Amino acid sequence: MKLDQSQHILIVGLGLLGGSYAMALKKQGFHVAALARREETVQYALENGIIDEGSARIDRDLIGQADLVIFALYPHVFLEWITQNQSYLKSGAILTDVTGVKGCIVGKIQSILRPDTEFIAAHPMAGREVCGIENSSDEIFKGANYLVVPTEKNTPGAIELCTDLGEKLGFKRVAQLSPARHDEMIAFLSQLTHCIAVSLMCCNDTPGMEAYTGDSFRDLTRIARINDEMWSELFLDNKQALLAQMKRFQAEFDNLYHKIETGDREGIREMMRCSTERRKRFDKIG
Amino acid sequence: MKLDQSQHILIVGLGLLGGSYAMALKKQGFHVAALARREETVQYALENGIIDEGSARIDRDLIGQADLVIFALYPHVFLEWITQNQSYLKSGAILTDVTGVKGCIVGKIQSILRPDTEFIAAHPMAGREVCGIENSSDEIFKGANYLVVPTEKNTPGAIELCTDLGEKLGFKRVAQLSPARHDEMIAFLSQLTHCIAVSLMCCNDTPGMEAYTGDSFRDLTRIARINDEMWSELFLDNKQALLAQMKRFQAEFDNLYHKIETGDREGIREMMRCSTERRKRFDKIG
Repeated sequence: MKLDQSQHILIVGLGLLGGSYAMALKKQGFHVAALARREETVQYALENGIIDEGSARIDRDLIGQADLVIFALYPHVFLEWITQNQSYLKSGAILTDVTGVKGCIVGKIQSILRPDTEFIAAHPMAGREVCGIENSSDEIFKGANYLVVPTEKNTPGAIELCTDLGEKLGFKRVAQLSPARHDEMIAFLSQLTHCIAVSLMCCNDTPGMEAYTGDSFRDLTRIARINDEMWSELFLDNKQALLAQMKRFQAEFDNLYHKIETGDREGIREMMRCSTERRKRFDKIG
Repeated sequence: MKLDQSQHILIVGLGLLGGSYAMALKKQGFHVAALARREETVQYALENGIIDEGSARIDRDLIGQADLVIFALYPHVFLEWITQNQSYLKSGAILTDVTGVKGCIVGKIQSILRPDTEFIAAHPMAGREVCGIENSSDEIFKGANYLVVPTEKNTPGAIELCTDLGEKLGFKRVAQLSPARHDEMIAFLSQLTHCIAVSLMCCNDTPGMEAYTGDSFRDLTRIARINDEMWSELFLDNKQALLAQMKRFQAEFDNLYHKIETGDREGIREMMRCSTERRKRFDKIG
């Protein structure tokens, strides 16, 4: 099952990611409708050609026409939306999302969802340190990873459709993993890095440091500019996995601290050679 | 005292920074000579028009002609060079450097240096995660910070010359600070960030993670590709200041860990708002 241009796409939520999805799909020739919370957002998206049609209310027609519904909402808002509005969905509709945690949400959605529709979870590994539709850009998907997160309830057809969506959006690499595995990986690769950046930025308030800094500090704190409402929810929704990864990092950092304290130069160099070697795998591809 | 094109510049050490200095100064119309350890490096620099003349041995003529000598060497090599070769310097020569630590080196150099020459320390806050002259580029100085690190032994003329050098190299902002203050700032802004990146890269070796990652992990580990010989020396040369900054970061990270563990969402959000606000000051200018 692949996406084709006869299918109606509805995006629910027009923030940074919802807007970027809309742009990418419009460029691919799809008819894109959207629902947003605020009227200004819908107007902005229409005026800038980001969507074909949209509404700031629960428009039963738009919902009922959609073959593919993409949810770009906070986890708890997504769950509420399904509870309140799933009766308006077309029979056979495929639902997907962009939510940054999966364990706490995928099972719940799949268990309450109408049996004549299907939810296949996904997580685009792309974003920016700013939010809102005015910062949207389909450029953020270039060279990036897209994660499809199926469960045993998903059909091969929906998994294929979701994979095809990732490719059509412009992602470089589409991978598949289970909700538990996803949350473990994201705790390490994304949530831990945000914890580090926030802590680094908060731990020192010496005035004027911006005149002394180089790029390393800028790089490590780029994501310290963070949407506190969204990320605090994601952290707590994935608490156990995140705490485990934080401990893992702390142990290694303590290890390096000890080597520096004892003047173990060869031990320090060994860690650096390890990090240099491993980092090579993470360069962004084409 | 300003640099003018009648002055002879000698760069000692043609790695990434030495080569980048040479490129920037040649573009400004200066005659640039250089000494390197390896003959291939000198040949590469000559063939690529990076320097005007150079040698892989201690060329007394080149040393004796130089009005400004820029040392781009590891700290202990810099100290050895001065001990062995300072007799060849021209009377009145100004010496400067690019060394990443100051407390352990500036006092030593100034105490053994011939009284008819002067050493004014500097630290360009620019670099790349790769080394060697083949990776040199004067582009790395654009928008970057340059630190002049004088002591009570320095004359206003040499401080002015070193400031002018930073500006002519293309740095955006030139600041002045004492060796002790420099080492404290660099421990936080540069060395701590490298410790974090190395620890983050070393603490998890799950295969295939590159297919799941987003830019935040890439950003936080860019500098995990690190020259282990140089950085282990810099860490140990600045051990006390670095350990103090590592402790400072650990305490804040523990603080965030505790807030997540206890589900203190408002506490987490407060830290995130603090980091978001503070990070704004660190955007690269111009």
